[in-house]
Amino acid sequence: MRMVDIIEKKRDGLSLTDEEIRFFVRGYVDGTVPDYQASAFAMAVLFRGMDSRETATLTDAMMHSGETIDLSDIPGVKVDKHSTGGVGDKTSLVLGPLVASCGAKLAKMSGRGLGHTGGTLDKMESVPGMRIALKESEFKDQVKRIGIAIAGQTAELVPADKKLYALRDVTGTVESIPLIASSIMSKKLASGSDAILLDVKFGGGAFMKDIKQATVLAKTMVEIGKNLGRDTRAILTDMDQPLGFAVGNAIEVIEAVNTLKGKGPKDLEELCIKAGGILLTQAGIVPDETEGEARIEEAIRSGKGFEKLCEFFAAQGGDVRYLEDTSLFPRARFVHEVKATKEGHVERIDCLAVGLSAMRLGAGRATLADHIDMSAGILLKKKVGDAVKKGDVLCLALTNKEGVGDVLKTLEGSFVLSETEVEKKPIVRRVIGREV
Amino acid sequence: MRMVDIIEKKRDGLSLTDEEIRFFVRGYVDGTVPDYQASAFAMAVLFRGMDSRETATLTDAMMHSGETIDLSDIPGVKVDKHSTGGVGDKTSLVLGPLVASCGAKLAKMSGRGLGHTGGTLDKMESVPGMRIALKESEFKDQVKRIGIAIAGQTAELVPADKKLYALRDVTGTVESIPLIASSIMSKKLASGSDAILLDVKFGGGAFMKDIKQATVLAKTMVEIGKNLGRDTRAILTDMDQPLGFAVGNAIEVIEAVNTLKGKGPKDLEELCIKAGGILLTQAGIVPDETEGEARIEEAIRSGKGFEKLCEFFAAQGGDVRYLEDTSLFPRARFVHEVKATKEGHVERIDCLAVGLSAMRLGAGRATLADHIDMSAGILLKKKVGDAVKKGDVLCLALTNKEGVGDVLKTLEGSFVLSETEVEKKPIVRRVIGREV
Repeated sequence: MRMVDIIEKKRDGLSLTDEEIRFFVRGYVDGTVPDYQASAFAMAVLFRGMDSRETATLTDAMMHSGETIDLSDIPGVKVDKHSTGGVGDKTSLVLGPLVASCGAKLAKMSGRGLGHTGGTLDKMESVPGMRIALKESEFKDQVKRIGIAIAGQTAELVPADKKLYALRDVTGTVESIPLIASSIMSKKLASGSDAILLDVKFGGGAFMKDIKQATVLAKTMVEIGKNLGRDTRAILTDMDQPLGFAVGNAIEVIEAVNTLKGKGPKDLEELCIKAGGILLTQAGIVPDETEGEARIEEAIRSGKGFEKLCEFFAAQGGDVRYLEDTSLFPRARFVHEVKATKEGHVERIDCLAVGLSAMRLGAGRATLADHIDMSAGILLKKKVGDAVKKGDVLCLALTNKEGVGDVLKTLEGSFVLSETEVEKKPIVRRVIGREV
Repeated sequence: MRMVDIIEKKRDGLSLTDEEIRFFVRGYVDGTVPDYQASAFAMAVLFRGMDSRETATLTDAMMHSGETIDLSDIPGVKVDKHSTGGVGDKTSLVLGPLVASCGAKLAKMSGRGLGHTGGTLDKMESVPGMRIALKESEFKDQVKRIGIAIAGQTAELVPADKKLYALRDVTGTVESIPLIASSIMSKKLASGSDAILLDVKFGGGAFMKDIKQATVLAKTMVEIGKNLGRDTRAILTDMDQPLGFAVGNAIEVIEAVNTLKGKGPKDLEELCIKAGGILLTQAGIVPDETEGEARIEEAIRSGKGFEKLCEFFAAQGGDVRYLEDTSLFPRARFVHEVKATKEGHVERIDCLAVGLSAMRLGAGRATLADHIDMSAGILLKKKVGDAVKKGDVLCLALTNKEGVGDVLKTLEGSFVLSETEVEKKPIVRRVIGREV
């Protein structure tokens, strides 16, 4: 078998055999298939696509390119949750404790985020003492004992994806549905959960710009999961504005705490209740999503979810006093008010502009070596559907940096106002992969 | 400027600026653009194409990636001729001396061929003493003095093409018209001729399988030449059977000699007369092709062309006695007759099968390290349009190898017979780029 023949076959629009796909993945990991063939192959896949069998085989081959985690000695259904990435997305820190407090076992491995703000792991680290590098045995023990662990991926997990993703990033081959889907799913499958819930974002702040594209990606991932024997479902959620009010690191943890205490933003709460209802169904704890949603609401009302958050952070070494009294988090030196220069109704908030602004205020990293300022970020004061008068505060910019005038101007421009009233839409638009 | 942005722009179907194309070529040659980006870029070009400005700029950038040859101190119009490659193609060894004997200056640099038989350079080397590595000054002096030189390309000529071609070969990105056209034309332009005639082959034995594809390639190359200020024309010639009777190395030189003496195969003679007529017009020696063709025919009849062949070989150290008495060439030990097993009319001869058979008999090389057996090859006894009776000899297989039974079977099968009569078609089907 020669890689050049495999490239040409895909280039010409033909389906690859399982052996050909496995030859590529094995060869790419062991170095016998060089980067220049892998990138040409990725570009051919980008143009020609892959059918569902090919995509499942690619995912399976990537998943088995390194170690996989065996969670079978933890009793019950282990669930995992993954978001395709948005601005202000602190869902895991709310949803995880909620479902765990209802009896589900959430075992989540995360990658480090590059971009607007830190990823879930970085946000967790805004609490002093919090460890995200857990040994596999620690990770499993914690899930078994308290029902939740969120940790960094080990280097041995899915080396094929690590190598291929880095290559795609510099060769214009990121935007391919089968490659995106197999990248995400290979990591989720290797992490060992029985059931997976995917939160596929769409809109200006998401990788998928519209619901149609997002639906294709979601269906592709759900199909991979089913082909490989895992209960996989997806929700499609709106990213035409940041999720919640807080975009940053410490301020997102504070918002997660507030949400678990029943005082969070409506969109974040709605998302966690819907997603929680599905996860509890997948875990076999409730017969249907309606019952599951009721349990999640009860976990918020009773404070059980917040207790679980504290237990979870404590288990990973975090100083729980910060969760109990969020005023302990260090504050940014400067708080700038961004005001409206005209009146109207918020039609959308440019997530990309908000995300990049947060990064420029210090909340994100442009390269993996960059330092994150945990206290920096943006607090929205207006959301889509809100009426705005001239001079109203649209958002607050929190930073330790000076000379951020440009950022403030960008932030003001990121609020798109309409002259007429704007309807508030539900955040979860569609669920895919519901068992029938 | 970042290469990844250039790849994405082309991937998305946009036109690249001249600066972007030059950035790629410069970066690829100096190593700042790695192979894996170049291959992804080549694949994107394969899918999206390039417009005529982009293709001309790519060609120009490649041409200037290394040394170029300046022929301006040789008086008159310098012409060059290039074939896209076929089986049994010894045209340069006939056409070159013919046009030179009529006063044209033919300055041709060739690459070493990989494949069925050797390239023109290998065929030349079947004459003892013949040198194909000429210094630039030698090359130019010879063109000035006797009107013809054919030599190997120096390593310094078009390094961008050398590197890119090797990469395309292993990444499934050979079959792209703008990449093929710029590869050929960058080398022709760097060789310094004022006028270029391209022989674009089509049919089973050619890279372009039909005349439509070949026309697109020819027009693309002619346009590049015009955009870069050279009189460039192309003929489209039929490769549904090998050219002439001989497929090998020494036997092709012998056939070239015979053709220059007026005793060659009709198709080869026709091709040389047509192409010669165009080249003499391009050289400004005759007012039109009809007059040019008459001069070429006269050069055959008078023996002037053959004299020029001898002068040309002698100038490069070749032992001219072999040309004067072709019985001096060593003969292969075995001569196998391949006979027809049924009767009919030859409809086509599978060039790929004939070419690969010649290679297996010893006439070609599979890798650059392989040795070529100059005496091996195939002599056709029947051509398209000929009637065949059962038991007639279709061709002779010349070899020094034993155990070639398989090859003989392949050769017999490569003659496709029809029950009804088959018309002989002209070899030159179309001329592109004629001045109007």
